[in-house]
Amino acid sequence: MKPLQHLTILDLSRVLACPFASMILAELGATVIKVEQPGAGDETRAFEPQLAQDSAYYFACNRSKASITVNLRQPEGQNIIRELAQKVDVVVENFPAGTLGRHGLDFAMLSALNPRLVYVSCTGFGQTGPYAHKKGYDSVFQAMGGLMSLTGEKGGGPVKPGLPIADLTSGLWVAIGILAMLSGREKTGHGAHLDFSMLDGQVSLLTLAAARYFALGEIAPRLGTQHPGRVPSATFRCKDGKFAHITASDQHWQPLCKVLNLNFDADLSTNELRVEHRDIVMLKLNEEVSKIERAKLLQMLDEVEVPIGPVNDVAEILSDAHVRARGLVGSFDYPGVGEFKALALPYKFLGWDNPEIGAPPTLGGDTEKVLADRLGYSKEKIAALKAAKAI
Amino acid sequence: MKPLQHLTILDLSRVLACPFASMILAELGATVIKVEQPGAGDETRAFEPQLAQDSAYYFACNRSKASITVNLRQPEGQNIIRELAQKVDVVVENFPAGTLGRHGLDFAMLSALNPRLVYVSCTGFGQTGPYAHKKGYDSVFQAMGGLMSLTGEKGGGPVKPGLPIADLTSGLWVAIGILAMLSGREKTGHGAHLDFSMLDGQVSLLTLAAARYFALGEIAPRLGTQHPGRVPSATFRCKDGKFAHITASDQHWQPLCKVLNLNFDADLSTNELRVEHRDIVMLKLNEEVSKIERAKLLQMLDEVEVPIGPVNDVAEILSDAHVRARGLVGSFDYPGVGEFKALALPYKFLGWDNPEIGAPPTLGGDTEKVLADRLGYSKEKIAALKAAKAI
Repeated sequence: MKPLQHLTILDLSRVLACPFASMILAELGATVIKVEQPGAGDETRAFEPQLAQDSAYYFACNRSKASITVNLRQPEGQNIIRELAQKVDVVVENFPAGTLGRHGLDFAMLSALNPRLVYVSCTGFGQTGPYAHKKGYDSVFQAMGGLMSLTGEKGGGPVKPGLPIADLTSGLWVAIGILAMLSGREKTGHGAHLDFSMLDGQVSLLTLAAARYFALGEIAPRLGTQHPGRVPSATFRCKDGKFAHITASDQHWQPLCKVLNLNFDADLSTNELRVEHRDIVMLKLNEEVSKIERAKLLQMLDEVEVPIGPVNDVAEILSDAHVRARGLVGSFDYPGVGEFKALALPYKFLGWDNPEIGAPPTLGGDTEKVLADRLGYSKEKIAALKAAKAI
Repeated sequence: MKPLQHLTILDLSRVLACPFASMILAELGATVIKVEQPGAGDETRAFEPQLAQDSAYYFACNRSKASITVNLRQPEGQNIIRELAQKVDVVVENFPAGTLGRHGLDFAMLSALNPRLVYVSCTGFGQTGPYAHKKGYDSVFQAMGGLMSLTGEKGGGPVKPGLPIADLTSGLWVAIGILAMLSGREKTGHGAHLDFSMLDGQVSLLTLAAARYFALGEIAPRLGTQHPGRVPSATFRCKDGKFAHITASDQHWQPLCKVLNLNFDADLSTNELRVEHRDIVMLKLNEEVSKIERAKLLQMLDEVEVPIGPVNDVAEILSDAHVRARGLVGSFDYPGVGEFKALALPYKFLGWDNPEIGAPPTLGGDTEKVLADRLGYSKEKIAALKAAKAI
């Protein structure tokens, strides 16, 4: 049994952030009914890389869900959503502010039908505030939220982190928000609405960078792979051209110096002193590391317990022995594609079954079953809705 | 009332990832009792930037908690934790694997005393697997987990995203894990253990990058601020030297060309065609944007609804009118420091009180109250524990 097996989520969201959130809840046990537009479905089904008539992008965020197609612009389609909303615990949507109100599907309307309903509206900038009307994408939030300004080479321009951090962390924030509202509901019986803004989510992550600014009025400069307040914490290029990242605290400094034969004239035993002499520490470390093959360096520093890791590319980390031993890489079967690999959620439970990788749904593959089983629709009614292009 | 007001968390964790998780739950309403080492406390209290006898670092991840000091190496201290564990919903810890077992405080021992207990062990590499014995830091997980290899200038070396992404996202993953186990407990009455690995958390975020690799055997190159599969999605330098990020889909292409007077010989109306002609699109866009001041550019593209955002530095985003209107920047009062600014959680509820920024605790400031109120300890007993340096 999985921990969220008792929950049902009606997911009207598309693209990345919210589908990621609902996939997490799905693989923790929740039943997720994804509502897609008849014909096209979630637009990410058409994104590259394409696989059969679907995409690896869609697969990455929509596993272990059911898919039904419903036309939200038709009254009959809207009615289906209103009926389903009375039988589920959670509704998630990421339409522009106001859209679902015009369809009679906003929180006010659905919670009047189901007062226990937990409802999330996820938008770029939230339902209120001067930018509420604007749209954005992951990289715009990374830019506006400060992350991009903190990322890049020393003296260079801003750089975008190579994963859709704003989308992914929004998904994580939304999953927390849903579970928190459900926890509260256990005590009071009433549902609630969450107005989540992706920009808010990014800003909340500034944590230490904001604290530094609030404390000192100081903004850390871009430092490549280095850390503004810790030395050494940086990536080094080894003899074979491969990169390794070393991060050492005071207790690692002597072992590091000993194993690499590093000698300094000054006392550099505290981080404070090393930050002050950053240039000479980095120069000598770079020099020594450049003489050693990466595999050898990893072994040498592992032996003296100095934290080090290879800068793995995606292929390297996905074939790493530890990652494989933790069961993170698995697969599912999909019609027309066959077996396709996927990454498991990072949860290892004792007391619950672990999350398992499930297949993503074909477009509307569960429409008839969901309407029949959950709403008791007859075959005739379903056929009529199809003929009317409502589903 | 806040959604998690009925929950109590005993937090044995230090530094960043788990303290961030428990701060999120605290500001959603949970009572969090943070257990710190007598004398020094969480080591981040000594990190820079220092404020009075504490640090902005500690403040950023420990707001709205109580702090008690308990010496976990003494039998009397261990006994306090065993007694408290019977009165709380959740225990969180991030000691190296095996440490709390030696103190009689691991999941097996505490869940025998409180079968409803939800218990999280968060480590760098997890409790099992070939690297389980290793230690690491945020940047090592960013390096090993693939994120750093995807980040950097075109043709340049890897770059570390400028926020502790591995720590922060581990905190988000852990918060989800705790709430999921608590949700399951409502149905079964039994607690559970979560073995969370920070590297696992990083790997699970590879999502789209992993999907691309699984589909095509291809690893996207480092592209600075550009997107491997979308053109244009990039940061541009404006006339005044300030940076702006533009991300456009097909529906934005004509408005973008029109407002910037861009002319191309070929048909570039689809993203596929623009990806193919990435160089010429980027060349012309860079050229045009470099002639316009950032404020003007933002206004021009906003008017035609092309997604654009300034690359804000930390000072800019924290003074942004929208961020202020959303109430993200607040403050708390701390002894010896006075009013200090902080970032609120990104949750706006209808049906619950919103998260509020609370003060972080002074070291051990709640020890006597917690022991008296929750365990019924007398003044004499508390004095004896103090004399024995157990608290």
